[in-house]
Amino acid sequence: MTEARSGEFVQSLERGLAVIRAFDAEHPRLTLSEVARATGLTRAAARRFLLTLVELGYVHTDGRLFSLRPRVLDLGYAYLSGLGLPEVARPHLEALAAQVRESCSVSVLDGDEVVYVARVATRRIMTVGISVGSRFPAYATSMGRVLLAAQPADWLDDYLATARLRPLTRHTVTDPARLRAALTTIAAQGYAIVDQELEEGLRSLAAPIHGEHGSVVAAINVSAHASRGSSETIRTELLPPLLATAKRVEEDLAAGPGR
Amino acid sequence: MTEARSGEFVQSLERGLAVIRAFDAEHPRLTLSEVARATGLTRAAARRFLLTLVELGYVHTDGRLFSLRPRVLDLGYAYLSGLGLPEVARPHLEALAAQVRESCSVSVLDGDEVVYVARVATRRIMTVGISVGSRFPAYATSMGRVLLAAQPADWLDDYLATARLRPLTRHTVTDPARLRAALTTIAAQGYAIVDQELEEGLRSLAAPIHGEHGSVVAAINVSAHASRGSSETIRTELLPPLLATAKRVEEDLAAGPGR
Repeated sequence: MTEARSGEFVQSLERGLAVIRAFDAEHPRLTLSEVARATGLTRAAARRFLLTLVELGYVHTDGRLFSLRPRVLDLGYAYLSGLGLPEVARPHLEALAAQVRESCSVSVLDGDEVVYVARVATRRIMTVGISVGSRFPAYATSMGRVLLAAQPADWLDDYLATARLRPLTRHTVTDPARLRAALTTIAAQGYAIVDQELEEGLRSLAAPIHGEHGSVVAAINVSAHASRGSSETIRTELLPPLLATAKRVEEDLAAGPGR
Repeated sequence: MTEARSGEFVQSLERGLAVIRAFDAEHPRLTLSEVARATGLTRAAARRFLLTLVELGYVHTDGRLFSLRPRVLDLGYAYLSGLGLPEVARPHLEALAAQVRESCSVSVLDGDEVVYVARVATRRIMTVGISVGSRFPAYATSMGRVLLAAQPADWLDDYLATARLRPLTRHTVTDPARLRAALTTIAAQGYAIVDQELEEGLRSLAAPIHGEHGSVVAAINVSAHASRGSSETIRTELLPPLLATAKRVEEDLAAGPGR
């Protein structure tokens, strides 16, 4: 965590954020020693950061165990509300979910992962719960492929040369050449279907959302259990409402307050 | 921002978090000068914090304008996943929303506000969009009243003596004595109904969610447009499924992995 960096780098900020990220689903409550171990900080340093976070209202302690407080959500909320997109997309996602009776989401690309920024779930069809902030590897998801397909050629070459394409199911495309061919098709046709490559039994259909300058700023999807029908059925039934919804989101984004 | 504090306090962390919070819906993109102004930092200090956040992947810049990146969501996600509750509650919220065809939410108390930690929206009935991380004053919401009613007597005395009870609609209870009486009733009956006190046309019904030691850890609610019927109709139709859902969440919490 302490590589050589410019003299302007504020290491205390990096360390403080690392302390917040030491907490997760498996470790919702940590002792001082556990935080020190998870972050590589000395106990004295970990203690200073924890007590600062307690004083600022981000961390709760009973004297021995530490846990995060809801104020931490404000940080993520600053991102989501600044993005504008989730707020604009949500009513359209709700209408789409009600129409097709399947869960719908909007996500953005962050590095090689998609991050959910809005979601309307009708029922649980994935083994893992998804919520705003959830991440998945872009290559194995329909939204990820839509977003990858919109990246500049240089970026994509670099990604395909370096990405670890792990098989998440027996259907996952893990060959860079095949993934590149799929992305070319997606860019041409304007949507992506992923058939049980992220999780067995789950099919997903995604389309791009374009921003004011025509660039792809996000992706929108509908996911369905395999029992709903084949990929062809999904395309026939769900693509028209999905594309219509993407268009409505784009129109609202364009009409928005200067975003 | 720079009050006298213990020598252990890490001011750089406070300042870095303040830089993140300078961004919001009205200010999704800021210049260096704007960040300095919003945080009270010098331009040189604001620049150091911004460039550190850029290097850590939390902030994007085109050289002039700065904006938050999705990685900021990970911080809030650390809280939500550590809480466990949203994950446990979500499928039950989805079932409840489908059953009663109204939006349902779970929130926790943070100071004098409720913070949404899970939500399933069926349609938009509020003028303001609500999502995970949204905050409202506890006194004017059904979930807030359920959570206030569960606070220790000392805490509540202090709250009622100091809280600013502003009229958000013409129905909002703003008299501390009346609010206390309402909270006593809520504690006895095990649920709260708020009738257009947060927003005209909006009625909401909430119940407590108890944790493993019997204490109230969160609240769950259903909200409905006034056109659905009177408060009495809402109680008759929605209270039984709401209480049944709260019970199922509590059972799953108790059965959870040691949370």
